[in-house]
Amino acid sequence: MSDSVSPLAPKSYPTVPAMDGVRFATAEAGIKYKGRTDVLLVSLPEDTAVAGVFTKSKCASAPVDWCKAILPHGTARALLVNSGNANAFTGKKGHEAAGLSAQIVANVLGCRPEDVFLASTGVIGEPLDAGKFVGVIDQIAGTADASWLDAAAAIMTTDTYPKLSTAKAELGGVEVSISGIAKGAGMIAPDMATMLSFVFTDALVAPDVLQTMLSVETQDSFNAVTVDSDTSTSDTVLVFATGSAAGRGQTSIDTMDDPRAAAFQAALRTVMQDLARQIVRDGEGARKFVEIQVEDAESDVSAKTIALSIANSPLFKTAIAGEDANWGRVVMAVGKAGEPADRDRLSIWFGDIRVALDGERDPGYSEEAAAAVMKNDQITVRVNLGIGTGKARVWTCDLTKEYVAINGDYRS
Amino acid sequence: MSDSVSPLAPKSYPTVPAMDGVRFATAEAGIKYKGRTDVLLVSLPEDTAVAGVFTKSKCASAPVDWCKAILPHGTARALLVNSGNANAFTGKKGHEAAGLSAQIVANVLGCRPEDVFLASTGVIGEPLDAGKFVGVIDQIAGTADASWLDAAAAIMTTDTYPKLSTAKAELGGVEVSISGIAKGAGMIAPDMATMLSFVFTDALVAPDVLQTMLSVETQDSFNAVTVDSDTSTSDTVLVFATGSAAGRGQTSIDTMDDPRAAAFQAALRTVMQDLARQIVRDGEGARKFVEIQVEDAESDVSAKTIALSIANSPLFKTAIAGEDANWGRVVMAVGKAGEPADRDRLSIWFGDIRVALDGERDPGYSEEAAAAVMKNDQITVRVNLGIGTGKARVWTCDLTKEYVAINGDYRS
Repeated sequence: MSDSVSPLAPKSYPTVPAMDGVRFATAEAGIKYKGRTDVLLVSLPEDTAVAGVFTKSKCASAPVDWCKAILPHGTARALLVNSGNANAFTGKKGHEAAGLSAQIVANVLGCRPEDVFLASTGVIGEPLDAGKFVGVIDQIAGTADASWLDAAAAIMTTDTYPKLSTAKAELGGVEVSISGIAKGAGMIAPDMATMLSFVFTDALVAPDVLQTMLSVETQDSFNAVTVDSDTSTSDTVLVFATGSAAGRGQTSIDTMDDPRAAAFQAALRTVMQDLARQIVRDGEGARKFVEIQVEDAESDVSAKTIALSIANSPLFKTAIAGEDANWGRVVMAVGKAGEPADRDRLSIWFGDIRVALDGERDPGYSEEAAAAVMKNDQITVRVNLGIGTGKARVWTCDLTKEYVAINGDYRS
Repeated sequence: MSDSVSPLAPKSYPTVPAMDGVRFATAEAGIKYKGRTDVLLVSLPEDTAVAGVFTKSKCASAPVDWCKAILPHGTARALLVNSGNANAFTGKKGHEAAGLSAQIVANVLGCRPEDVFLASTGVIGEPLDAGKFVGVIDQIAGTADASWLDAAAAIMTTDTYPKLSTAKAELGGVEVSISGIAKGAGMIAPDMATMLSFVFTDALVAPDVLQTMLSVETQDSFNAVTVDSDTSTSDTVLVFATGSAAGRGQTSIDTMDDPRAAAFQAALRTVMQDLARQIVRDGEGARKFVEIQVEDAESDVSAKTIALSIANSPLFKTAIAGEDANWGRVVMAVGKAGEPADRDRLSIWFGDIRVALDGERDPGYSEEAAAAVMKNDQITVRVNLGIGTGKARVWTCDLTKEYVAINGDYRS
């Protein structure tokens, strides 16, 4: 594990405004880590709307199963997150631990267990002792004065920095805020798993509208990033809308046709894409942030498959690490994606430098110009397939020896 | 690039018997490498039957296009292979270079260009100067006295050892031999590409029968290995059957129903699987050879998808490198494969040690016993899904810092 902060970390943290009725509490339950917080409890006002998207893994964790089961209610009163243990691949005991965790929170906050959303991140296959939550939750529920930064820090596993983002939207003259936290990048470090993100807003939005917006925006944010192509058993994104802006005159957004929906969705997009980029910037061993743009593919879906094929190719990622403008590996990754492509119409850019044109090395190719682009810590690779109008953008990072060291040298 | 031979290399090379009418010639054409052979010419008797399988890449190389076009004829007189330049992503010039190469060989051997099979391996996107072949082919065609080991060495790029294999089969009282050479493992090193294998036999086998056997056996040999999940633009496997055993009384095998077909196919399988394993053992930076066995999946196809999901997972591969019995990463890779799976029926073994049972850590799990297995340089990981009868086996290697160094530190 690396102790140093990623060189791609943001230079400063945003100032996130407080949100009426959204209260954070953190504690040290000693689940795995010592000397740091590992439990986050978020209490929410009554009638808070909730929407969620989860891992597509066939081996999802117990907390993911729990959240999927309660999500249809559409409302939430609390969120409990722990780091250090994923409660994944823990069988019947894992389900019991999830239920017991929700019950402990419900007892303290005076709500039903099915109002309590759960997320766990950490070791797979190790039973989670929900009893560890009893004392700390009693203790912290009363204070609940932690900051957004505290909240973001409590859910970290081997993240090298806490991730938070905030934006504002104007909904018919009423200003609302959308603020979120996130952790992780793929399957992070020894035994660790999980990409988690929790977004909160004081806007009044119906749960089904919130769910539609979340599902759409996930595609171009959290589902458009990859560090190592590995999918966690615990990936969870939840959005909570408290509706407290109603006190300032905001009426509910109940349909996607509401003209204010677009403004809200745009602000949600800003926060989700910002958090997604921060996750990639904290990818294990990452030294370069890479944006892959694929255009003029047969369809948007096809473009995204090709973009992910490039972003997940170990040979492409090691070339980026080596500052090598190795566009032959881009050709290879396009070719293996299995999507419609015509070799002789393919063009490729590294930054502003066109390196390949119509299926051949660009006639004006300059090794020096391409090499200069590769020295940057943010690199855009653009691929034009020349066969349609589909496009996609994904974010990834390079594959370095540090990645292998983090994931192979040490077992926790 | 590493100068040292893979620690997983075979301890010795097999003695491969000469084959009537199959003559090897090698030369130093200076295509890219200096001080080593980089051209292999194989001349074959008239009426040699041929079968081939090729990369599924949408950006296949010019030699792959050439071979696919001439394969339907079913016969071959020569094979020309060069290392150092893949003649891939070279547009119209690449096609011309392929045609010219075949013409040069045809002129010297007195056959038609469409009797000459081609394979190129090396840099992508660099025009191939076929003119370099003119002198050397004139020169070597006359001598043609190179050994099997010479032939295997001439087609290497960054392979750390030459790969060859041989087997015998008895076809109705007549002994025939099947011998082959191979190179590569995925996309090997800076700018390098390609897995190539060429197998030769003196058996008399009809081209369509040979093609059927080759296609079937490729699935459990060359299509069941992965180093880094990256698919080359040049992957090519060709089998040539000279039929010279007819001189010793072997009558032709013209259908798969011929009782001798099974014996021949079994020997072909032995050679192909041996060569495929040798490729994995020479995977970039490999220190461990890993066999993944998936059983009781919904179908064989599903089992193979799951096995490859495990074998291609960077986190699984780094855990193997770190001698970490991290079965949580196997669970993750099963979960992300997208195939039918029931978390609570999943069991996992590392070597003989059962580490997970019915979706939980095995009650008798011993960290020491599992750790001892991980120290071996050959490790079998077995996954039982408990939902059907499908099974598959794939071979892979670990992901080490050396892999990143080979592919990222240096540009040729």
